[in-house]
Amino acid sequence: MNNSFLCIGLDPDPEYLPHPHIPSFLQEIVDATSDIACAYKPNLAFFEALGLGGMQTLLESIRSVPKHIPIIADAKRGDIGNTDAFYARALFDIYKFDAATVSAYGGHEGIKPFLDYADRGIFVWCRSSNEGAADIQDLELADGRLMYEAVAEEARSWNSAGNVGLVVGATWPEQLERVRDICPDMPILVPGVGVQEGDLEASVQAAMDRRGEGFLINASRSILYSARNDGYAGAARKTAQKLRNRINVMREAALARR
Amino acid sequence: MNNSFLCIGLDPDPEYLPHPHIPSFLQEIVDATSDIACAYKPNLAFFEALGLGGMQTLLESIRSVPKHIPIIADAKRGDIGNTDAFYARALFDIYKFDAATVSAYGGHEGIKPFLDYADRGIFVWCRSSNEGAADIQDLELADGRLMYEAVAEEARSWNSAGNVGLVVGATWPEQLERVRDICPDMPILVPGVGVQEGDLEASVQAAMDRRGEGFLINASRSILYSARNDGYAGAARKTAQKLRNRINVMREAALARR
Repeated sequence: MNNSFLCIGLDPDPEYLPHPHIPSFLQEIVDATSDIACAYKPNLAFFEALGLGGMQTLLESIRSVPKHIPIIADAKRGDIGNTDAFYARALFDIYKFDAATVSAYGGHEGIKPFLDYADRGIFVWCRSSNEGAADIQDLELADGRLMYEAVAEEARSWNSAGNVGLVVGATWPEQLERVRDICPDMPILVPGVGVQEGDLEASVQAAMDRRGEGFLINASRSILYSARNDGYAGAARKTAQKLRNRINVMREAALARR
Repeated sequence: MNNSFLCIGLDPDPEYLPHPHIPSFLQEIVDATSDIACAYKPNLAFFEALGLGGMQTLLESIRSVPKHIPIIADAKRGDIGNTDAFYARALFDIYKFDAATVSAYGGHEGIKPFLDYADRGIFVWCRSSNEGAADIQDLELADGRLMYEAVAEEARSWNSAGNVGLVVGATWPEQLERVRDICPDMPILVPGVGVQEGDLEASVQAAMDRRGEGFLINASRSILYSARNDGYAGAARKTAQKLRNRINVMREAALARR
């Protein structure tokens, strides 16, 4: 795992690209960071917005990711089971992603086709990092739980194959702590560090499991677009290195406090 | 609208295809039904599962859909706003779909990039037709509402541009009735008729608005795979025609009962 809990998000935003050819740009980012990242997370929306060649661009972009580093498709797919069987086929059989983010709204029957790939990972979208997330995710249930807590409990109940994790934004460390309480042993993918300025230290402490593991801190734009000039790959490496190290220091400190 | 409330779902399932070339098959289905359907609904999962050429296949498949018939991308997309801006760009700018189904879990901030396309339609995934839907969608809130009712109320509050509708499965007419009460003027897309055997008569009565309009009954597999031999286009036409007529008769009867 490169002694790293840093996941690097691959979100090619045309507005910020320091290099016009996306696969070359992202390959350079990957090459400059593959000894630092514990995973890569391409966000499918950014590739789909490129048009018909978008998924081809994605595949080329991740071609140089070393085999031992998992690639998580950030896709937030979810529907009824009959449909999710095809989404799972696309993400896991065709594109061979190691893991994918999914939406839980269709319930267990909806998610099951993803779960059935026992050698792949599922990250259930639980509590997101945006301001508006509370509209639905913080609705209070009759039994006192909040919506995202109920989703976390559902996700735990779907984890019989041990391949289920959760997505919980870093902007809300207290929610992260709640989810860790509910799911003590499941991996948590934590976006929202970096541009979205989640509280990193609180997030690391809240997200790690009892062994100080089981979490991935994701940063995308803050790494990819560290420099807008020719030095972008070196700059991305430096930013990634710094963040990886900060996470490790915070993690050690949090472990020492226990 | 072809005096029709029938939406035809385009779900090319390799297991059932009566013709090996998907675009030819779906074009024939479209040509055989375009005077009967009020909309077409390609389900993106089925095309994504075809691999890199999947979206090209989709575009070719819908090429002969007459301009006046809207095409609804069944995509259930949804994330935080920054990401949804790219999903919206893909679905509306690149692929020019007239409408799309979306997931509400990211709240208003997540959905807003879709809403901003005021000339396109959004159908918010509210209550689905699968058995497992209740896991999340029927959770009871502290104020007595069920989760899907809260989503319907959120969707109503997002409808300032008049371009928001809902997806509510036909397998649960009582939920359809609740959503129609909450959103008296918003269009409701109703899957789950046909193979999933929702109660058509109860669904039509529950889904229609006060003028007897504002709903689309979707059938996919039951029409596409009406015949597994060379007569598939004619058979699809007959099934679609019969369903379109049944819906109209039920609608007239429900209007007369009022």
